[in-house]
Amino acid sequence: MADFTDHLKPAHDGTATLQAERDGSAIMVDELAAHLLSRDSFLQRQTKVLAVLSKESLFQKDQQLNLSRPERYHLGLARAKAIQRIMRREHWDHADYSMAEYLNDEMSPYFLHMSMFVTTVREQASEAQQAYWMPKILNYDIIGCYAQTELGHGSNVRGLETTATWDPKSKEFDIHSPYLTASKWWNGSMGRTATHAIVVAQLLLPTKDDPTAYTSHGPQTFLLQIRDTKNHQPLPSIAVGDIGPKYGYASMDNGYMLFDHHRVPKSAMLSRYAEVSDEVGTFTRRGHPAVVYGSLTYVRGQIIMHARLVLARAVTVAVRYCSIRRQFSDRDAKSRDAPEMKVIDYPTVQIRILPLLATTFALHYTGEYFHKLYAESRSTIEKGDFGPLAELHSASSGLKSLCTTLAADGIETCRRAMGGHGFGGRSGLVGLNADYLSKPTVEGDNWMITQQVAAYLIKTMQLCVENPDSPSKSPTEELFRHYLENKDHRIPQSYLAPTSRSILDTNIVSIFQWRAAALSYIAYTTRVLEKKPWTKMMIQLHALSRAYSEQILVTNFHNALTDLAHSSLSSPTPEILGLCFRLFSLFTMEQSSPSFLLTTSIPHTCLSTLPDSILDLMTALRPHAVKLVDAWSIPDFLLDSALGSYDGRVYEELFDMAHRRNPLNRVTFNPDWRSEEIVLGSGDGGRHVLAKL
Amino acid sequence: MADFTDHLKPAHDGTATLQAERDGSAIMVDELAAHLLSRDSFLQRQTKVLAVLSKESLFQKDQQLNLSRPERYHLGLARAKAIQRIMRREHWDHADYSMAEYLNDEMSPYFLHMSMFVTTVREQASEAQQAYWMPKILNYDIIGCYAQTELGHGSNVRGLETTATWDPKSKEFDIHSPYLTASKWWNGSMGRTATHAIVVAQLLLPTKDDPTAYTSHGPQTFLLQIRDTKNHQPLPSIAVGDIGPKYGYASMDNGYMLFDHHRVPKSAMLSRYAEVSDEVGTFTRRGHPAVVYGSLTYVRGQIIMHARLVLARAVTVAVRYCSIRRQFSDRDAKSRDAPEMKVIDYPTVQIRILPLLATTFALHYTGEYFHKLYAESRSTIEKGDFGPLAELHSASSGLKSLCTTLAADGIETCRRAMGGHGFGGRSGLVGLNADYLSKPTVEGDNWMITQQVAAYLIKTMQLCVENPDSPSKSPTEELFRHYLENKDHRIPQSYLAPTSRSILDTNIVSIFQWRAAALSYIAYTTRVLEKKPWTKMMIQLHALSRAYSEQILVTNFHNALTDLAHSSLSSPTPEILGLCFRLFSLFTMEQSSPSFLLTTSIPHTCLSTLPDSILDLMTALRPHAVKLVDAWSIPDFLLDSALGSYDGRVYEELFDMAHRRNPLNRVTFNPDWRSEEIVLGSGDGGRHVLAKL
Repeated sequence: MADFTDHLKPAHDGTATLQAERDGSAIMVDELAAHLLSRDSFLQRQTKVLAVLSKESLFQKDQQLNLSRPERYHLGLARAKAIQRIMRREHWDHADYSMAEYLNDEMSPYFLHMSMFVTTVREQASEAQQAYWMPKILNYDIIGCYAQTELGHGSNVRGLETTATWDPKSKEFDIHSPYLTASKWWNGSMGRTATHAIVVAQLLLPTKDDPTAYTSHGPQTFLLQIRDTKNHQPLPSIAVGDIGPKYGYASMDNGYMLFDHHRVPKSAMLSRYAEVSDEVGTFTRRGHPAVVYGSLTYVRGQIIMHARLVLARAVTVAVRYCSIRRQFSDRDAKSRDAPEMKVIDYPTVQIRILPLLATTFALHYTGEYFHKLYAESRSTIEKGDFGPLAELHSASSGLKSLCTTLAADGIETCRRAMGGHGFGGRSGLVGLNADYLSKPTVEGDNWMITQQVAAYLIKTMQLCVENPDSPSKSPTEELFRHYLENKDHRIPQSYLAPTSRSILDTNIVSIFQWRAAALSYIAYTTRVLEKKPWTKMMIQLHALSRAYSEQILVTNFHNALTDLAHSSLSSPTPEILGLCFRLFSLFTMEQSSPSFLLTTSIPHTCLSTLPDSILDLMTALRPHAVKLVDAWSIPDFLLDSALGSYDGRVYEELFDMAHRRNPLNRVTFNPDWRSEEIVLGSGDGGRHVLAKL
Repeated sequence: MADFTDHLKPAHDGTATLQAERDGSAIMVDELAAHLLSRDSFLQRQTKVLAVLSKESLFQKDQQLNLSRPERYHLGLARAKAIQRIMRREHWDHADYSMAEYLNDEMSPYFLHMSMFVTTVREQASEAQQAYWMPKILNYDIIGCYAQTELGHGSNVRGLETTATWDPKSKEFDIHSPYLTASKWWNGSMGRTATHAIVVAQLLLPTKDDPTAYTSHGPQTFLLQIRDTKNHQPLPSIAVGDIGPKYGYASMDNGYMLFDHHRVPKSAMLSRYAEVSDEVGTFTRRGHPAVVYGSLTYVRGQIIMHARLVLARAVTVAVRYCSIRRQFSDRDAKSRDAPEMKVIDYPTVQIRILPLLATTFALHYTGEYFHKLYAESRSTIEKGDFGPLAELHSASSGLKSLCTTLAADGIETCRRAMGGHGFGGRSGLVGLNADYLSKPTVEGDNWMITQQVAAYLIKTMQLCVENPDSPSKSPTEELFRHYLENKDHRIPQSYLAPTSRSILDTNIVSIFQWRAAALSYIAYTTRVLEKKPWTKMMIQLHALSRAYSEQILVTNFHNALTDLAHSSLSSPTPEILGLCFRLFSLFTMEQSSPSFLLTTSIPHTCLSTLPDSILDLMTALRPHAVKLVDAWSIPDFLLDSALGSYDGRVYEELFDMAHRRNPLNRVTFNPDWRSEEIVLGSGDGGRHVLAKL
């Protein structure tokens, strides 16, 4: 419908503004993008899959925020099914499929089927079980989910309440939920979609000498059908459904499930590593599922890489919008009518988004490092040497905690930096934020798993203290021995500098490493020598894990810069990545300056110059901000943001969405309180709304 | 529908657990509740209004997260209208009405009518205009909104693009939107509800010596009709509608509005303080709208009081749930089968929620202080003495920024402390979080308004430096003069203590005050003496405002404790509020210890004992946590939380909602990708979903 608004333009042209920003930096975006995103042909794959998906009407996103949660599941299932069909039509491989999921950007109701369900069958089913199940799984003839977490138990798997009791007479397991809190809970794809489930339950076997009593053999995994293949109704003696709305994950049917003495045959127990003998039920363990740790590292590596893209997405929106948005003129301007400043030129905006921009690169290089390490250690593990696993597991736990916290907090920091429009639905951050806020909790709660990191560091420090002359078997041991040899002199004087501006990059790395080692030594002393209760130390141990993980990020970023010096990246890109390294490192140092004061002899005068150094670095980085986010190559389809689109048509797109594409504007209401009528002329007393309450 | 789940109970009884918590503390909850919530009969009013509202089916909340955003507006309007009818039926006064809005807990489509719209008419309309409009407003014969903010301009009112050009011939104003960015934007109640609007526009009058040119006289306010009173369609030459979904505010129709040379009579301009003469159009200002600042203080006082209840709500949920939730046994426990600990007993959970519990009281006493101050200064102002206003305005700006940041961040901290179930919809924090996240931005962006605070502090410091012997006219002047007299000796030695445990409460206050003064002095030196550009100082000035505001919170909390000593509150409540004071203060000190090191001579050794002092304080406070949140008296109706309800039936309520009250579970789906059918047996190829895209 044409009207007088059609010809209106914004007071400032966003497209021209972004073009001017791009013209102002000599970074070669394509080259940097290829440097960041070439592994597994990420960029080419993105282009290929995007071309297909963005043309399908089912995958248009701009109305998603107008749908109800039940509608979002309907849509999610429709999309999941469509992706399967498109995949076959386009001959996509699994990596293409993952790219489609990434671009579609919502938790698919099939998600668990192709992740934990198939992985568990692959890892824990016997050969005979795999031969039976795998073809059905790969064909999607059955849809699986993974039922471990319960209403009363999340992280503590040992505390699970669901039981699987062996009945030697019938040769069956009796799967049962003795309490309400035994209800399986949160399990994705289970609420409405799945036909089958991996169920983790406490294995109870008749006690040898007393067949009326039972002994627990800990949590074991069972594969069972949960719904009828024809009418998709729950099997008798199973209650299963969706748990209802959540912060995010609107398209996912996270479910609950209870068992009322549900009987399954012996073959239901996955038996690659454990088996119950037919007779009285003797339990046998076989081999060691250590390969699981290897794949855990792989998953954690993916979490870091995912966190960098999530953060890059939020930063892309914030940098582009803040480069276009103008507000207030410089307080020191001579004229009252001085032009308004771009908000990205305010240090109060820079301090919120530019360190996060630097963080995307910090996450990237550590993610790359983990990826290489995984490939290397996989072959070591396959030779039967599980040596590197403990170190890897610890580092990946600490990094999972730190990186997902940085990304989750970063999204909200970017949103607030964008002021009012950041609160609007077209910021593109509403869904991202709601979904990503699960990440600090899932796959190991970000506070809880740091205890594992700290335990490893204390153990390693004890080893190094007690065996000063043994050769170091891991980077952490090497770091700790270096520290122990020098600790009486505190930090070597050569690291120090009168101001933060004059700290060499290599010394920044050394200072972060020294702090991590010193905090580990303090924790070792407190725990091992002074026998302080673990619980009383928990806050300190969380901080230790964070310091250790920050050291990993800083170290890998710096190593990557050294490699870059020999790469083909043209100037000024390597120098600008160097600025990002300093900004990330000094910003991180400033955030935790008390812990650097405590553990290093870095002078207070040096730390107190950090704010000025950070300001200088941000000034130097700022002209390149738009091109740096461009290099992350997040397509508009994924950004789904009026504020952050590549062409900078912020206001045109905000207005178009409101004026032409908002379904609420197609309804005329009756605002008179005297009438119960809601929609004008309908006579409806709000009944269609009331009916849903 | 009865099934085997009906008789199941959770493994641990939440009701009994909370009862044991309550039995373990001697706090008299009713007494403390009366102490906190007696002003304006808050508690009695809550009971009265709750009894009515909670019985109305329209106000049931448990399905809200299943509604789409357009449905939420339908519901919001139905509720807003119902409240009007109930109000008249029950003979509620305005305070009862506000209570109903608080308990209903969503932005009403009428919200702006009874806030900014009526307030602006009261304050800025002439007597004749008021006589005409006020009866229509109070009767809700018209519904008003307030159109100031534009697509391109939020905080900077001077930059507004909408123009109101005086036409001396027709004696009309021509209201016009010259650019797309001139579109009014965000204005609540405007999108679908309002019939009238206050419009803020740049007043353009013909230039005296050149009638073809126009001179701007800055932003002025106009009251105009925007929709037809019969068919509720926008008037010709107006485009108006809802801007679409946002983070929160689902029930509110935040709108956009553009004018195409829309003509209004001269009487549209609110003319209590400004008028245009009939002839060529001479502009006259009358009097000074200083009373506006007074009511701004009142609004800011309300924001602090609101922030404390919002935070209390999140903390109530977190404290109750974490007292019931058990996970893992103590790592140092002798037996492998030691019982699982309540998660609130982990210091890593305490450090996240107990300082926030203490913060609710800190906010409370400063809110009370502001309320008294408003009452006092109102009479001063009515006598024509605007002296105290600048101080009040500055303090209220700094506190608005700090308190809304503390509350907004606090909600998310509480949510994450609750692990998986915190991410669930029945945490009760989804809507609270989504709505409250607007607060750091609206009514003055939390980063931006701190510049005003800093400017006031620098100006006041300059005044004190240049006039050392003048009498102090405000608490800030008094503080600064005290500092200036002593600054060569740094902080007086008597304040200091060897450990944080041994700092006296009074000295905690002095240390916070000293830091605020010292940072003000540094800012004064840098700006006034060294002439550093304002922009370069912005980050430092933000930190200054925060330090100054923290000092206000600590000072008022301590003053209140002194009063409490003479109150009738029974032991141990005053002592426990004393613990809250220390916890809030020392936690705040620890968060910013570098700035205390920089500005005071408090020894590093003292600051380094803060973590242990905080741990001790949390241990002492923890047994009283449940009763302290009980005292805030947030009703279950408002909490709308399975995790936080008073009776502790966490798991029963979570399960009931999922199993019996989840509409998605009433639909059976077809999960087979080969079929386009979404709902099993419907044959519908997802068309009803697609249709909404």
